[in-house]
Amino acid sequence: MSAEADNPRPVKLAPSILSCDFAHLADELQAIAGADWAHVDVMDGAFVPNISFGLPILAAARRASNLLLDVHLMIERPERYLKDFVAAGADSLTVHVESTPHVHRAVQQIRELGKRAGVTLNPGTPLEAVRPLLADVDVVLVMSVNPGFGGQKFIPASLERIRTLRRWLDELGSAAELQVDGGVSSTNARAVVSAGASVLVAGSAVFGKDGARAGLERLREALK
Amino acid sequence: MSAEADNPRPVKLAPSILSCDFAHLADELQAIAGADWAHVDVMDGAFVPNISFGLPILAAARRASNLLLDVHLMIERPERYLKDFVAAGADSLTVHVESTPHVHRAVQQIRELGKRAGVTLNPGTPLEAVRPLLADVDVVLVMSVNPGFGGQKFIPASLERIRTLRRWLDELGSAAELQVDGGVSSTNARAVVSAGASVLVAGSAVFGKDGARAGLERLREALK
Amino acid sequence: MSAEADNPRPVKLAPSILSCDFAHLADELQAIAGADWAHVDVMDGAFVPNISFGLPILAAARRASNLLLDVHLMIERPERYLKDFVAAGADSLTVHVESTPHVHRAVQQIRELGKRAGVTLNPGTPLEAVRPLLADVDVVLVMSVNPGFGGQKFIPASLERIRTLRRWLDELGSAAELQVDGGVSSTNARAVVSAGASVLVAGSAVFGKDGARAGLERLREALK
Amino acid sequence: MSAEADNPRPVKLAPSILSCDFAHLADELQAIAGADWAHVDVMDGAFVPNISFGLPILAAARRASNLLLDVHLMIERPERYLKDFVAAGADSLTVHVESTPHVHRAVQQIRELGKRAGVTLNPGTPLEAVRPLLADVDVVLVMSVNPGFGGQKFIPASLERIRTLRRWLDELGSAAELQVDGGVSSTNARAVVSAGASVLVAGSAVFGKDGARAGLERLREALK
Amino acid sequence: MSAEADNPRPVKLAPSILSCDFAHLADELQAIAGADWAHVDVMDGAFVPNISFGLPILAAARRASNLLLDVHLMIERPERYLKDFVAAGADSLTVHVESTPHVHRAVQQIRELGKRAGVTLNPGTPLEAVRPLLADVDVVLVMSVNPGFGGQKFIPASLERIRTLRRWLDELGSAAELQVDGGVSSTNARAVVSAGASVLVAGSAVFGKDGARAGLERLREALK
Amino acid sequence: MSAEADNPRPVKLAPSILSCDFAHLADELQAIAGADWAHVDVMDGAFVPNISFGLPILAAARRASNLLLDVHLMIERPERYLKDFVAAGADSLTVHVESTPHVHRAVQQIRELGKRAGVTLNPGTPLEAVRPLLADVDVVLVMSVNPGFGGQKFIPASLERIRTLRRWLDELGSAAELQVDGGVSSTNARAVVSAGASVLVAGSAVFGKDGARAGLERLREALK
Repeated sequence: MSAEADNPRPVKLAPSILSCDFAHLADELQAIAGADWAHVDVMDGAFVPNISFGLPILAAARRASNLLLDVHLMIERPERYLKDFVAAGADSLTVHVESTPHVHRAVQQIRELGKRAGVTLNPGTPLEAVRPLLADVDVVLVMSVNPGFGGQKFIPASLERIRTLRRWLDELGSAAELQVDGGVSSTNARAVVSAGASVLVAGSAVFGKDGARAGLERLREALK
Repeated sequence: MSAEADNPRPVKLAPSILSCDFAHLADELQAIAGADWAHVDVMDGAFVPNISFGLPILAAARRASNLLLDVHLMIERPERYLKDFVAAGADSLTVHVESTPHVHRAVQQIRELGKRAGVTLNPGTPLEAVRPLLADVDVVLVMSVNPGFGGQKFIPASLERIRTLRRWLDELGSAAELQVDGGVSSTNARAVVSAGASVLVAGSAVFGKDGARAGLERLREALK
Repeated sequence: MSAEADNPRPVKLAPSILSCDFAHLADELQAIAGADWAHVDVMDGAFVPNISFGLPILAAARRASNLLLDVHLMIERPERYLKDFVAAGADSLTVHVESTPHVHRAVQQIRELGKRAGVTLNPGTPLEAVRPLLADVDVVLVMSVNPGFGGQKFIPASLERIRTLRRWLDELGSAAELQVDGGVSSTNARAVVSAGASVLVAGSAVFGKDGARAGLERLREALK
Repeated sequence: MSAEADNPRPVKLAPSILSCDFAHLADELQAIAGADWAHVDVMDGAFVPNISFGLPILAAARRASNLLLDVHLMIERPERYLKDFVAAGADSLTVHVESTPHVHRAVQQIRELGKRAGVTLNPGTPLEAVRPLLADVDVVLVMSVNPGFGGQKFIPASLERIRTLRRWLDELGSAAELQVDGGVSSTNARAVVSAGASVLVAGSAVFGKDGARAGLERLREALK
Repeated sequence: MSAEADNPRPVKLAPSILSCDFAHLADELQAIAGADWAHVDVMDGAFVPNISFGLPILAAARRASNLLLDVHLMIERPERYLKDFVAAGADSLTVHVESTPHVHRAVQQIRELGKRAGVTLNPGTPLEAVRPLLADVDVVLVMSVNPGFGGQKFIPASLERIRTLRRWLDELGSAAELQVDGGVSSTNARAVVSAGASVLVAGSAVFGKDGARAGLERLREALK
Repeated sequence: MSAEADNPRPVKLAPSILSCDFAHLADELQAIAGADWAHVDVMDGAFVPNISFGLPILAAARRASNLLLDVHLMIERPERYLKDFVAAGADSLTVHVESTPHVHRAVQQIRELGKRAGVTLNPGTPLEAVRPLLADVDVVLVMSVNPGFGGQKFIPASLERIRTLRRWLDELGSAAELQVDGGVSSTNARAVVSAGASVLVAGSAVFGKDGARAGLERLREALK
């Protein structure tokens, strides 16, 4: 019996708009309307060495799409901005354990704001760092590349990390999603899901030369 | 003889894309194709209490428009990102004197990268803070609202600040542009220009209900 | 046999003066003279989002009371201020593992200053974070709410954390106190002690409408 | 004609509670009920190398006294806490130009909260730093010692700084108070007032061995 | 069978030049030419409370010696300076898990620069913090004193930490060096090696009164 | 009458050991024994983007030379380390106005430690920033390049800055030295002195291919 058999929940796809053509965001969101979530990568240039985008882009995405907007905050002290991101249209907010000493409080605040709360950690951070939060979150995000740095490939050791978190979540009886972000493509998507992931973030694998509809379809095919 | 008569150079308009509809950035840039510059407001959530956008949005604007892209860096220690913003398509980079102790070096670096260098200061910062840089910059930007905070009006004391900077630039024989950003509209545009401004940034005054073409036209009318 | 039977040591009560009436600190300290320790919550507005008080208040408490003054430093890089807090009258100093990379050194310094050394961690921090310090401290403090944020209730998952730390301390043969802070009241005090706590911090449960003497008595009753 | 003759406004006295006996704050405030303002020195251990006190002490002072509570924020990025200090009972809030790049905005916010806005600067900061704010504030505070460091004496060069600011305020027709803080005593109070001060902060000169009433009286005598 | 028997690899000695006479660095490096590595302790005054030295000293050591230069970065956000230290002559770069949230990325970068990558942790940091990195590094450094603080002795609990890391490395089949730094001398060197260390850093134990050659020899004797 | 005629005081030369061969620091210091001061450039990698050296190098220089050791602190919040640098042998300590809000206090502390106090500012910082300190310092240092960045040339606008500071010092009747650092060589030394400098820092101009004695001599020749 494969590991996938143990994980029969339908896999969700969450294209990362970081890889889309921002000159035509409404069109790009339209092209991924068949996806489950839209992943929104907020980078502040301090927590990670890149400045991507924040509130006005999220607000534009909100107006242009009905997709669940899944906001990944790669920013320092995210508790400062949780209200603002909810006001701008976030349905889900994911914070890094490395970005604040008050990550439990951040999760509480997101819940109090009525939104899905997620927690994530960098590839070099031990899984123990998220364990005290597993019972309180809706999403656990495994970074399978280092956030904010360009041109990276899926880190193979991520698979074992996904397996461990899947086991911990199952032991808790948690229904939280186990999301994976970084270097996911049609080549490795099955392996990632077999390891226990329930939501796949994909950037360039979706927003490729032949368009997001084709990219999304290719990813779905790979998962069959 | 009016102050404007002393300032016969044609006034440039620089719509701030911060106020545009980011779901349709290419269209919005098309709508302001008749403007002189496109003003790009980068906010990092640390120097200013707002996270706007950064490199991927600038890169998309670059692909979608031939306008001079005038990037205003409201970020801490901007010298860390100058190269990246040039690579993403900036034609001009403006840094805050409050954001780094090495503002002279930042200006040098922008020039070495072959781009127009600008310097700016917050409304509460004395004009003396930019004086040592006036001979080395292409743009001096006067903030006429506090950057990063919403819902503010043009600060009237800005007019006197513009006049002083205009005099200082003229005394140096500098050809640098004197740019004004914050609460500029058809109501006060003439006064701002009369005080000595040569480039006006306008956000909601351009990207209003009747579209950016109309907004731009209205502003031009007001300046006649 | 109840868990409490395993923990026969007399439970200490440590009212937190954060909840007292600071207009009458001497009187409030007099009212809790029958307590074991006075808990002193120092917050700097940076490590936690609240500024409570620091050296002059501690010094005043020292002059007004003979209670053991148990100082909980919710401040960044506490090693900068250890000497000052000892000079102001602290008998015990507790530092957060999240507040400095040099927490082992901070514990060493407190000991070198001749005072009781404590270590604590936020609700979202894994217990592993304090494990390397257990053999070297006099107090382990479990935060059962997030420090610095108002209006929070006792986090139920704290009980399991207390049990684990009690087991770890017992395995080491450590005589360190296991202290619990946050939302402790007459309703849950027994459960907290049963889980292994030996010192209870209580704020509003002590300093209530009917005065600290009554509050303290109520808490003692609940523990019988 | 003396400088004092040019400054006929009645001098206000603002005892600094930093020097009071915090074991008996209500009594101490009662003893200075005849003063004009109570000065409240908030220090965060980051902007200045001392942690004094914050919100709960201010709230206690508010409950215990009807004096105008004049809060001096020696904290980093004071704009984060303005609302909280107003909620805790501040009547006036003074911020340091060195503590935020957005000091103009901080002043605006204090005014929007309906309170008196003050601005101050350290002894090494040029007076030019407050000049852009003079027209917008209710109080200008001249630090005549370095804030947060103990055992300092009145810096004589402060007199010239007071004179300059008095001239600048008069030129603007401003009714703002010119307040002086640091080492003020019955020995130098007249000189300070003659230089142009309208509000004197005094710590140990008021809260001395013979009590605050006597200290206050001594200071008033010296000013006659 | 002793623990040492399980660890037959020849022990490497890495004198720390922090203890050498910097007036005669070339001579000192000559005196330790028989050592295996030269350990280079970079301290920035921010991550640790001491400023030791950086690039120009490393460059001088590079010109003066053929020893493997093993650079220990006790600096904040070391990823900012990796390239510079490689350019200055580092053969190996070791970073602290406490100094950056992106320690996995730092290790990747060092490898991409073609150098040996090391990771280290302070005495109070749980060993779990380095576990996700063990498969990717060439060196694991155990700090047996707190870095940057003077006058400290070897912390006895370090032995158990060395044993655990040795076991974890062996389980992984890793050939990474297990290095120990802090208070190592001829008195405890055998015990440290028996616990599993393969590289010993020694400062004052090498650069003593009778010169580094004698110190080195004494240490070698102790290990026989 | 030349400007130099107005500045008859003998010019001091202060070779910067940053450019020396650190493998042979004692020899290099010997070679510059005929200089007036040795300039010691401490960089922390935070205030400036370079890590040079700190306490152990200064201590070695102290043991190896009788020259006045003139320490230039390019570090954040230098007040944290003043005592340590004095203990390591500094005769003079110069701090940047941009590196601390408490620069006046830093100057006081250096004086209290019995050493010469200096103040400096970056090329983009207005001269007004040092004006409140001129009466209290022994050295004013004009940076004629941006500190910490490599490969820069003497900024011509520095001459005017030197002239202004010379005038301000003369107006005060101050005997403080006016020191210039950055790109000074035999080509421009006379101009720098004519503008009013009394101490010249020189790095590569002294420690060149033909050795420091020759470099020093060349510089002296240029000044005749």
